Amino acid sequence: MRGMAGWGGFFFSVLNYKTEKYVIAENKRIGVLFRLYQLAVLGYIIGWVFVVKKGYQEREEVLQTSVITKLKGVTLINSSEIGLHLWSAEDYVIPPNGEQVFFIVTNYIETPNQRLGFCAESSKVPNGQCLSDDDCVEGETVIAGNGIKTGSCLNSTGTCEIHAWCPVEYSKRPTEPLLSEAENFTVYIKNFIRFPKFEFSKSNVLDTSDGSYLKRCSYDRERHPYCPIFRVGDLVSWAGHDFQEMAVKGGSIGIHIQWKCDLDKDYSQCNPQYSFTRLDMNLNNSVTSGYNFRYARYYKDQNGETYRTLYKVYGIRFDIMINGQAGKFNIVPTVIAIGSGVALLGAGAFACDMILLYMMNTSSLYRERKFEIINFRFD
Amino acid sequence: MRGMAGWGGFFFSVLNYKTEKYVIAENKRIGVLFRLYQLAVLGYIIGWVFVVKKGYQEREEVLQTSVITKLKGVTLINSSEIGLHLWSAEDYVIPPNGEQVFFIVTNYIETPNQRLGFCAESSKVPNGQCLSDDDCVEGETVIAGNGIKTGSCLNSTGTCEIHAWCPVEYSKRPTEPLLSEAENFTVYIKNFIRFPKFEFSKSNVLDTSDGSYLKRCSYDRERHPYCPIFRVGDLVSWAGHDFQEMAVKGGSIGIHIQWKCDLDKDYSQCNPQYSFTRLDMNLNNSVTSGYNFRYARYYKDQNGETYRTLYKVYGIRFDIMINGQAGKFNIVPTVIAIGSGVALLGAGAFACDMILLYMMNTSSLYRERKFEIINFRFD
Amino acid sequence: MRGMAGWGGFFFSVLNYKTEKYVIAENKRIGVLFRLYQLAVLGYIIGWVFVVKKGYQEREEVLQTSVITKLKGVTLINSSEIGLHLWSAEDYVIPPNGEQVFFIVTNYIETPNQRLGFCAESSKVPNGQCLSDDDCVEGETVIAGNGIKTGSCLNSTGTCEIHAWCPVEYSKRPTEPLLSEAENFTVYIKNFIRFPKFEFSKSNVLDTSDGSYLKRCSYDRERHPYCPIFRVGDLVSWAGHDFQEMAVKGGSIGIHIQWKCDLDKDYSQCNPQYSFTRLDMNLNNSVTSGYNFRYARYYKDQNGETYRTLYKVYGIRFDIMINGQAGKFNIVPTVIAIGSGVALLGAGAFACDMILLYMMNTSSLYRERKFEIINFRFD
Repeated sequence: MRGMAGWGGFFFSVLNYKTEKYVIAENKRIGVLFRLYQLAVLGYIIGWVFVVKKGYQEREEVLQTSVITKLKGVTLINSSEIGLHLWSAEDYVIPPNGEQVFFIVTNYIETPNQRLGFCAESSKVPNGQCLSDDDCVEGETVIAGNGIKTGSCLNSTGTCEIHAWCPVEYSKRPTEPLLSEAENFTVYIKNFIRFPKFEFSKSNVLDTSDGSYLKRCSYDRERHPYCPIFRVGDLVSWAGHDFQEMAVKGGSIGIHIQWKCDLDKDYSQCNPQYSFTRLDMNLNNSVTSGYNFRYARYYKDQNGETYRTLYKVYGIRFDIMINGQAGKFNIVPTVIAIGSGVALLGAGAFACDMILLYMMNTSSLYRERKFEIINFRFD
Repeated sequence: MRGMAGWGGFFFSVLNYKTEKYVIAENKRIGVLFRLYQLAVLGYIIGWVFVVKKGYQEREEVLQTSVITKLKGVTLINSSEIGLHLWSAEDYVIPPNGEQVFFIVTNYIETPNQRLGFCAESSKVPNGQCLSDDDCVEGETVIAGNGIKTGSCLNSTGTCEIHAWCPVEYSKRPTEPLLSEAENFTVYIKNFIRFPKFEFSKSNVLDTSDGSYLKRCSYDRERHPYCPIFRVGDLVSWAGHDFQEMAVKGGSIGIHIQWKCDLDKDYSQCNPQYSFTRLDMNLNNSVTSGYNFRYARYYKDQNGETYRTLYKVYGIRFDIMINGQAGKFNIVPTVIAIGSGVALLGAGAFACDMILLYMMNTSSLYRERKFEIINFRFD
Repeated sequence: MRGMAGWGGFFFSVLNYKTEKYVIAENKRIGVLFRLYQLAVLGYIIGWVFVVKKGYQEREEVLQTSVITKLKGVTLINSSEIGLHLWSAEDYVIPPNGEQVFFIVTNYIETPNQRLGFCAESSKVPNGQCLSDDDCVEGETVIAGNGIKTGSCLNSTGTCEIHAWCPVEYSKRPTEPLLSEAENFTVYIKNFIRFPKFEFSKSNVLDTSDGSYLKRCSYDRERHPYCPIFRVGDLVSWAGHDFQEMAVKGGSIGIHIQWKCDLDKDYSQCNPQYSFTRLDMNLNNSVTSGYNFRYARYYKDQNGETYRTLYKVYGIRFDIMINGQAGKFNIVPTVIAIGSGVALLGAGAFACDMILLYMMNTSSLYRERKFEIINFRFD
């Protein structure tokens, strides 16, 4: 068969098994070193890539998600200033339609019977303060203020007269949260998720035929992980804060729902994990903490004139953030994980060769035996 | 050149082509086995990784997306109980501002002229039922109820008297959806997507200069895939449910828009695919199905006293969920896919060697020829 | 040691270092070719995969994000048609509660004192036009119209009489934006992000103890990258459009915040990057541009009859879209990147072998020396 050429021979020889010829270097140090390296690579592939990182799985980290929320609870406020108010879910949840991001009023400033007219700017607005009429240029907007300057400075308050909804907002925030009982409101959070790549979907609500379960249960990490009903006060305390303290100025709480699913295991092994953080505080300080906004209710009197009640509401905003990862066995990542490990073995052999070839006193012998020279010039 | 050492020789020899010396084992069985293995690996790399999975592409699964929705349609309700009502988009779409998650009212309970006062709790609230005044502790909130207990039990209804918006909600849901004609409303869904990594963006609206096209077209998978106008009834039926049935208690429909884009192909090959699922039902039962919430409209009478109309609205919530994947040729995943496949070929050679070396009766001959021993001890 | 078999010998020989026997082909052309190929692969691995693409990093592209927005500014409208109106944030921001997607009114049509009744359909609705009563089938809804046909055609307007909120909307949009001063409103955007895999979180607001900084600063890419306060007019102009032009019909602006974070570097190196695009325009035309919706405010008169004011608001919708990528050193992608590169080196050797074996006139010599034949048949 030697010297055989041409396609026939090529085809015939193709069916022979060709394998690298090896040279055995009876050097135990290098041998042990190389075996240890092989063991390390093997340990890495099996232990780290396959067992810990599940490298044989295709990953999906993008998921489709839908959240429905509903609040329950009612509280009666009887303050000397404002009078009697009953707050129920249709009032204190904004927006009312059960979205993923919702806000619960815990404190508020009510300014009733505002009408369009002329009055003094609040003394709390820096740009509205004045010493003379020259400080109040007519037609100019008060920066971060409530209206448009009319051009005159009012001595009584030391602020510009403005064209605005009058009287301007009564700007003292109650030091105690008016809706302190909001702590006991309950929130129902239904989360549906779907991993589109694997066509896997699940919900965080117990799939029970017992209709009353969801009416009386309460979330508990151990006993009721599939009861999605939370007490508002608990949500805040799990985020590491005190509800009554937070309720005064408001704030923002992140409810993280994490779905880490190994789809090679059973459906029941894919469970939601909840965690809670406060979002409106930076690490070092609380300058930017708090959460509030204003809304108005408009009325018309008998003459068709518009007046309104302005609410500045402080409260807790809940952001429900879903993230998830699903993994399922797939041949491509498996091959990539194994293949790249095998290739690394080759890199180790290369390193050992370098040591033997250039860094030992037996190098020349080794080189002689490892390499055979074909000198084409004498061909 | 033999025995040549030192850097000069090293540099010179570097330009020689070194290649593994092969041993040809004329064993057809192993040869065929190895060739088959090589073919399988090659087939896997070309067929599966490159053709099916497009392993030569860099993937992006995170996309920026923006959705604008708008509903059209109007319906007149003339029921003996409620009187005449006209519902147009500004009323039945909540919130009205064209968001990604929107709600269409299909049924409702209206409780007009509620005023703050004292009345009997609804007999439907378990915690509000009582036998004597002792069951109604003063100042306690009725759990899942409408107000605060005053301390007295009303014999007429068998429920506690409460401080609430009175009268309490008339709690019988109409058995026929009041807005049954909502089936014919149309919804316009504009979806803009962008893959930030590839700087590719597209929209699901036909890029036409014919202004009237979007006024008269209707979505059709085959003929009008780029007309984003859907009939509400179709959306529900595509999700496998009956609109009239679902409209009674409400529900939640997921509208999935999937963008699977091969950016190595033409711009026109990247098209949205719509699919529709119902989100408020678990697999086994319908305990948690339905969707409703309450909102109130506040009025003031001539004396400045507040009264309100409470609406409990049932309806269909639409969650538009966008997901997408884009792939584009990139050298890194290509190299990883090829490289790991090549490495696997080596693993096959290793397995064949093991068979030849240790599991055949010709093993000792093979071993003798495959391995050459350098014995440094006799150096 | 030759011919040694059995497990003892196997174990002993295992500690020997086995290495491929190489054949050196003194062919400088192939040698140089192969070295160049090796250099290219090495350059690719080091230069492209490691330096440019940071292939040694594990990537996370899914992030948890929370956005809080707040608008400031007030404007007074004094038009002859509508009279005096003061628009402040509680009116022109919809929804008012500081969400990720918000809308600012820049122009509007107000239709006050609508009552349920009978009137002529607007002549702008094609389906409402008629020549005789036959065109107005009783009980039919006007497609894309305002009400339900009563069956009679009104000669005065040439449109059907409808049962609707009357009078129907006054349908001429002001040609100048009524809230042209909205250009100077400011928007505060607080964005909190978290990469769940790396447990890294950051916010786009300067972490300062100087409380007044956030009251007076203004975003500037160079000087104040951590001041999240933007002028509305700037947002529009950065997206390449003119505010006054866009304010007439409305539109949609995407505010992209991108977090590209190399977590192997310092915390301060992970910064938000803002970019702005217009979302409501397709490439070729502006047929689908504009953004508007309607909402109504309901009132009751002394007799308890409901009337309403309908607003059709045009304005700019801002979609804040967050995306981010974080990378951190991880051993798995590093091994995959190196391993697949090493495997590629082997593929190059294979190609060079093919050239030497089959495409040169010295091929038969080369083949003789490269391959050693073990003929089991003569064993």
